This record gives sequence, C-alpha cells and structure tokens, in this order.
Amino acid sequence: MSAKNLDSLDKIVSLSKARGYIFQSSEIYGGLAAVYDYGPLGVELKRNIRDLWWKSMTQVHDNIVGVDAAIFMHPKVWEASGHVDGFNDPMIDDKQSKKRYRADMLIEQHILKLRQKGKVEKADELQEKLDTTGTREGLCEDLYAIIMEEEINAPESGAFDWTEVRQFNLMFKTHYGATSTKDEDAIYLRPETAQGIFVNYKNVMDTARVQVPFGIAQIGKAFRNEVVARQFIFRMREFEQMEMQYFVKPGEDEGEYNAWHEKRLAWHKEIGIRDENIRSVDHPDDKLAHYARAAADIQYHYPFGWQEVEGIHNRTDFDLSRHQEYSGKKMEYYDQKEQERYIPYVIETSIGLDRKTLMVLCDAYREEEVDGDTRTVLKLHPKLAPTKVGIFPLMKKPELQELARKIEEDLKQDYTVRYDEAGSIGKRYRRQDEAGTPFCVTVDFEALDDNTVTIRYRDDMEQERVPVDKLSSVIHEKMRGWKPE
Amino acid sequence: MSAKNLDSLDKIVSLSKARGYIFQSSEIYGGLAAVYDYGPLGVELKRNIRDLWWKSMTQVHDNIVGVDAAIFMHPKVWEASGHVDGFNDPMIDDKQSKKRYRADMLIEQHILKLRQKGKVEKADELQEKLDTTGTREGLCEDLYAIIMEEEINAPESGAFDWTEVRQFNLMFKTHYGATSTKDEDAIYLRPETAQGIFVNYKNVMDTARVQVPFGIAQIGKAFRNEVVARQFIFRMREFEQMEMQYFVKPGEDEGEYNAWHEKRLAWHKEIGIRDENIRSVDHPDDKLAHYARAAADIQYHYPFGWQEVEGIHNRTDFDLSRHQEYSGKKMEYYDQKEQERYIPYVIETSIGLDRKTLMVLCDAYREEEVDGDTRTVLKLHPKLAPTKVGIFPLMKKPELQELARKIEEDLKQDYTVRYDEAGSIGKRYRRQDEAGTPFCVTVDFEALDDNTVTIRYRDDMEQERVPVDKLSSVIHEKMRGWKPE
Repeated sequence: MSAKNLDSLDKIVSLSKARGYIFQSSEIYGGLAAVYDYGPLGVELKRNIRDLWWKSMTQVHDNIVGVDAAIFMHPKVWEASGHVDGFNDPMIDDKQSKKRYRADMLIEQHILKLRQKGKVEKADELQEKLDTTGTREGLCEDLYAIIMEEEINAPESGAFDWTEVRQFNLMFKTHYGATSTKDEDAIYLRPETAQGIFVNYKNVMDTARVQVPFGIAQIGKAFRNEVVARQFIFRMREFEQMEMQYFVKPGEDEGEYNAWHEKRLAWHKEIGIRDENIRSVDHPDDKLAHYARAAADIQYHYPFGWQEVEGIHNRTDFDLSRHQEYSGKKMEYYDQKEQERYIPYVIETSIGLDRKTLMVLCDAYREEEVDGDTRTVLKLHPKLAPTKVGIFPLMKKPELQELARKIEEDLKQDYTVRYDEAGSIGKRYRRQDEAGTPFCVTVDFEALDDNTVTIRYRDDMEQERVPVDKLSSVIHEKMRGWKPE
Repeated sequence: MSAKNLDSLDKIVSLSKARGYIFQSSEIYGGLAAVYDYGPLGVELKRNIRDLWWKSMTQVHDNIVGVDAAIFMHPKVWEASGHVDGFNDPMIDDKQSKKRYRADMLIEQHILKLRQKGKVEKADELQEKLDTTGTREGLCEDLYAIIMEEEINAPESGAFDWTEVRQFNLMFKTHYGATSTKDEDAIYLRPETAQGIFVNYKNVMDTARVQVPFGIAQIGKAFRNEVVARQFIFRMREFEQMEMQYFVKPGEDEGEYNAWHEKRLAWHKEIGIRDENIRSVDHPDDKLAHYARAAADIQYHYPFGWQEVEGIHNRTDFDLSRHQEYSGKKMEYYDQKEQERYIPYVIETSIGLDRKTLMVLCDAYREEEVDGDTRTVLKLHPKLAPTKVGIFPLMKKPELQELARKIEEDLKQDYTVRYDEAGSIGKRYRRQDEAGTPFCVTVDFEALDDNTVTIRYRDDMEQERVPVDKLSSVIHEKMRGWKPE
C-alpha cells in the first residue's frame, strides 16, 4: 500500500462537491462569487471544529468566558477601530470597460509578465518600488505613477484609459431602521468579530467576576468586500472567525503573547494536523499593523502554498484606548491587589474557521493504492469526522437489517451514525472512507449466533470482531487514542 | 417556602444584564435599537439550546441532514421566493417631523385610544375594517383612507400632514463586489434561512443519498428591517433561526404535518417548559400565507402575552416550483419504487432561537421566599444551564482550595464548571441560583478526612454528602432524571 497526499486544490473542490462537504452558494442560479454553502458533511465537520475550539477556550480555562455579539454594531465602533478611515484597497477604473481593478494587483501582474519575458532586472526594480509603496503615505499617487510610467493596459479591454487610483472601503454598508434612506442611517456588516469583544469588555468585567488576566472568546460571521476573493473557501466575502482576546497587565504582554503563540500551535497538532504541514512565522517589526506590537501567523501548507490560518497578535491597549476616547467611557481595570488602575493590553488569537476547515480537509486527504485500485480516504481526527460510525447489514436480509437497526438506535445516543445497505460492502466502505468515517460496523450471519460484529478501521482497513455490547466503548477508546499518520 | 413566577419582562431584562446573559448591543455607544449581544451566560445557554435542537433533528433522525448556507445569496432567490415583491410593510411619513410610521400600527394605536375613552362600538367597527384590510389588494389606499377619515395625528409632532401610504421592503440591501456602486450589484441579507435549504435541495439529494421523505436542518442568522422591533430579544432586526424543511410525497403532506406538529410541541416540554405555559394555535384558512396550506403557531405565555415561538407550516410545493421556474433547473424527485416523478411538498418547522432563549429564561425564573428573604432562581433544565457545577472551598484555606481545584480539574472534563471562593457560602449559592447552576459542590474540612463533599441541589436546596469519585456520575444521573416543577 503506497500513499499519496494532496497535490492540488481541484481534488478537494470536487470531493467537497461530490460528497456533500461544500457547495457553491446559490448554485442553481449560477452561484455567487466568493461565497460557499456547507453541505451535510461540511456542516458537521465545521460544527466539530467549532465545538473543540470553544471547549479548548471556555471549558478548559476557568478565566476565559464567551460572548456572542451581533453582526450589526453602532457605526461609531468602526470609527474608533480605524476601519472607516483605514480599511481600504487602492482601486483604479478602466474608463472603456467600466471595470475596476486593484491597482497593486495590476502592477504585480505586470511584474510577472516582465519575468516571463526574461526582464528580471526591470521586474526586480519594480517589485522593490511596489514593496516600499505599501508602507508609505501617498499610496494612491505612487501606484498611479507606476501604472502611467509602465503604460500598463487594462487586462480585459486592452485600453490605456484609466481613472485615478482611489481608496475603496472593504466594509459592506446597509441602511438601518425606518427612515432607511438617509446616509446617516448607514451601518456596516462587521469586518471582524474582535470589536464585539472590546465593546463588551466592561459588561463582562462587571458581570462575570473575572480578574486580569482573563479572556473573552467569540465565534461568528464577518464580512469583507474583497476585490480578489479566491482559492475556494480560503478567502471569501462572508466568513466565520473564532477569536479570543486575552486581557493582560501591561508589561506581562510579552510573556502571555509567547505562551498563547505556543498553545495555539499545539492545538492544531492535537486535533490531527501533521507537524510538517504547519509552521509559525513572525511578522517583522516593519510589517506590523498599526495596532500591533508583535504578531505571528500560524501557517498551513495548502496546495496553493503556505498561508495563514491563524494570527496571534499583541494588540497593546490600542483598541480599548480608542473606545475610551470615542465612547467617553472609562476602559480602565482596577487591580485590587496592587491597588492600581490601567488599561489592559490585549493578546489576540484569531482563526478563520473556513480556512481551518479547508486545512483539515487538505491534511486528511489521501490517495492510496490498494490491490491495484486507488482508495480516496479522509484521515480526519475521529473527533472531527462528520459521521463517526457506518452501520451495514451484510445483505438485505430482515434478520441482519433488524440487528443493524438495533445497533444504530443504540450507537446514535453517543455518536453520529450512518446506516447503509446499498451496494457491496466494499463500495460501502469506500463511500465512508471518502466521508472520513473512522469506524464501520458490519452485521453478518455470525452475529446472529454469537452477538459479535465486525468493526473495520478506516485508517489501516484492519478488521476485528467485537461483542455488540462493547461497541460503544471500543469506539470511545479508539477515538481517544487516535494519532495522525 | 412560597414561590412566585415571572410577572414582568423588566425582571428578565435586569437579571439578564446583571448576570451576563444579554446586553444591549454596542452599549458603550448608546446602543443600537433592536439588536442585543449575548454575554458569558447567554452564549452558553443559546449554545445548549442550539445543540439540543440540532441533535434532536440530525442525530436522532437518520433521514434528516444539515446544511449551513451563506447569508449572502443570489438576488434571484428573493425574486423566486416572493420577498422582493411581497415582503413589505405599509409605511406613511409625517411631513412635519419627517418621521415614518407603520400605517396599520397608527390605526391600532388609534383604536386603543378609542377603547380607553369608552368608545367601544366605534373601536370594534374600525378593528373589523382593519382586519379585512390586511387580506385584500389595495392595502395602502385602504389604510390611507382610514387615517384620513379618522383624522389620526402623528404621535410625535401632533400634525395631520401625511404623505401617501407606500410599501417598504423589509430586506436589508447592500452592494457586492468590486464595482459596488451600480444598483444591479445590490444583494440582500437573507430575511429567512429557509431559502438556503431550498436552493441546496438538489445538491443534498445528489450527494447525501436520501430518499423522500427526508429533511434538511439549518441554524443561522436572518435579518429584517422591522419598523417596530421590540420586547427585548423577542423581535430583533438581526436574529437566529433554527429551521427544518421536510420533503414529502404530495398526498402524504397532511399526515406528516400533523406528526411534526406534535413532535415539535413535545420537544419544548421535554427540555423543561411547563405544560400550562405552552400551547398550539392553528391559523384559520383565510389567514394562511400565500405559500401555505396549513399552519400552526407554537405559542408561549410570555410576560407580554401569548406569542409565537415556533411555526409549523405546510408550504406545499410552492418554493421548489418557484425555484424551478426562476432557475430553469428541474426540482423533481424520482421515486424509484413507484417509478414516478414529482416535486415534493414541504413541511417546515421554524423556530426563533432568540425567542426560544427568552422563553427558557422566562419559564425558569422564580422568586421564592426563603427564611423571610427572597431567593431569585432560574430553574433551567440542567442540560440547558450555562454552568453545570459550582465548586466552592468552604474557606480560603490552602488545603480546601487545593481539593476544590482538583475537583474542578476533574469535573471540567465533562461539564462546564465555575470555581468560586469569594464571600459566604450562602452568597455563593445565591449567585449560582441566579445563573441557573443546578449543582454546587462545597469542600469542607470533613472532606479532607473522608473524601466526601456536600452537593447542593438548586431546585429544592437539599444537600447530601457524596464521595468525590462519585460526583461526576451523581451529576450525570440527576441531569437525566430532571423534571420541571
């Protein structure tokens, strides 16, 4: 048996569609760009990831509590957070086709073409220019100047007839309330969940009897009108975040940052991601966001390269100070032991649930040669598997079906199960392999005599006979002891 | 001990805020009307309700699977569903104050005033008129005529200077994609989750190997720009739905409708709602929505009256037929056994998660006289309680703290727990009573000798001594056997 891991995203996309993990959104109407729906298996996988994360935060740590803030927030929140002024992409319009492009992306494509033509020196020079542009004021003017100098044409119309470069905000806007026409009623769909935690920090402190250091965890949707949304569910316009903001005493932020950094990396491995596919990359000081003192990406080796799945940030007291300024409410914490007041620093752990789901699918995907045939199997951590147990009567005989149904009734008290009697046993195993089901139980005629059944393990395809009344605990034990191959 | 149930919503609102169940959204900025955030206890309560519902659908029924569709959908979906044309409220503007009102609500307030003035006959006559208006064409004109005839003044300015009555759509609109200025790029925030199920019906059929009858369950956010949003979290502009659409053979719809109607009513009682506070009300035939053949509300006796918490609807083949028409895709099911094709009928069960959460809080709320004092306690079903176990060392002595922490470490493998050592034991019990915590464990000096602790039950305040190593199973057993008082 030789095994092959994932070499392209296409395989995950087709498996996702064929097995009911992930569908294109509104597919019967031609789809909606950069949005996806989760199917029957996908929704269970995502639920399992969500639950494990939630418990790893709130149930395991007695100083971390949860909140669930609404997507709609007061517009002032986004002034305080800096999103109204700063959450932009530099865009340029082709006057001929009326199409809009991200100015920096146009230049990147131009650089790529130069390289393809062998003009390496010129390409390097431009890349250098582009990289410095990104961190300076006057970004729009600089990008516009490059496009003019290089005479970059519009990709679709071929024209060289551009507007100026302007900043476009990435937040979705809508109108709220009865008199929903005036611009002052505009509100935004939140572009990140973090602010829902910051605006509730005081409420949580006043009601949950927590003391610094303490954390607030939240899972929820966020929305960004990304111009270049791509790579399946990796970058979507509607996505789900799992964030935990940890409030610490200034001066203790560095230690806490390092501790959370380690803890989060370990978490991904605990739930089955292989060591060689995950790494951590620190942001260099000159690339830090305006609010951050330190930042690291936890990256996964996706089929399209190493990309961020989670960020760990030392946000300092930036957010709470801004909310204090904009709301006029005191954001200080009173430390009773030390008898001092301060605005806590915040260590943030922020994970994209959809990216994490894609990562889990990619890491679990295997193609194996079995008896000259190819077996596709998802070697998911059993705790993440959408279906835990497949239950099959060997044949469509009433006495086998009856016992199989009895086992189904019993096991579904503890696990998600799937009864299947269609096709050969071999075919049924393969279907569950593609669904990532770690255990399959087959009821044969021997079972009617001695009340034992065959349990077959997904990973090594080994089988053993187990008494019916021991099934639940055998499965329980195997789930606990599971390690990734 | 005499007990009192809830007599006003105010008590729930203040308890929710004080104990960290529910906060006003963006409170530090003065709040956002008709939106709320869930605090540490609220988020756990909502999670528990969500999980029980999900399991009662997808894990218990082997022919019900889940999906999780995006909030953003193709705009054509809302044309097909009838929301673009029909999801409106009749509004009228006061030209003096520029305030907008719902025309039918203005008339209702007028009727109320008539009644208060003893003009019962006139009030009845108008009510009759209003009731017939609601089901006819020309609604706007009729409402306008009543306002004119009755010379109803604007509530705030007192003026009688109205615009005409016009229909306003309740869907939130936003712009999507790079060229996000043109009106053809407008998309909506979904006003209901059901359509996310209908557009995925074919995908689910093709991948999940289901046969009619089968169901698709979904939990997610929906948004309605309600003009009159009120009663705390009962009617919000952003809310969460738990819906299950059950696809059945035409002709079998009536039987399935009745079966689901009964099942759903039973579910609310199973998770602890008292019989006398819940009822079911059929919609009369002439009040049915355009898509429905039969409909019933499951209502709860809220402090503000009997109100719908869940709806059961026979939606016929309305939705699938419309999507077939608008998308051009066949929505037929092929019945292999009978060798016939048909568009299935749909039985819908649709529950508002926020309303359900409010209902659970209202039903659990009690004030009891205990030794001349008032005890406020939430008698939640233990499965719904945010914290399952409070763990207290009797005093702040290292040996007691150590054992209490050991018990905490052990029990948090299975339950959400809360360690508390602040204040008298009596005060700690009361805090957990208000949080609805069903079990409290107190570690005293005796525990150090014989390894037994006191477990105290929330509902009857009885106490018993239990060996430390039996705690988890005693709690497990008590949770299973719990019944509402």
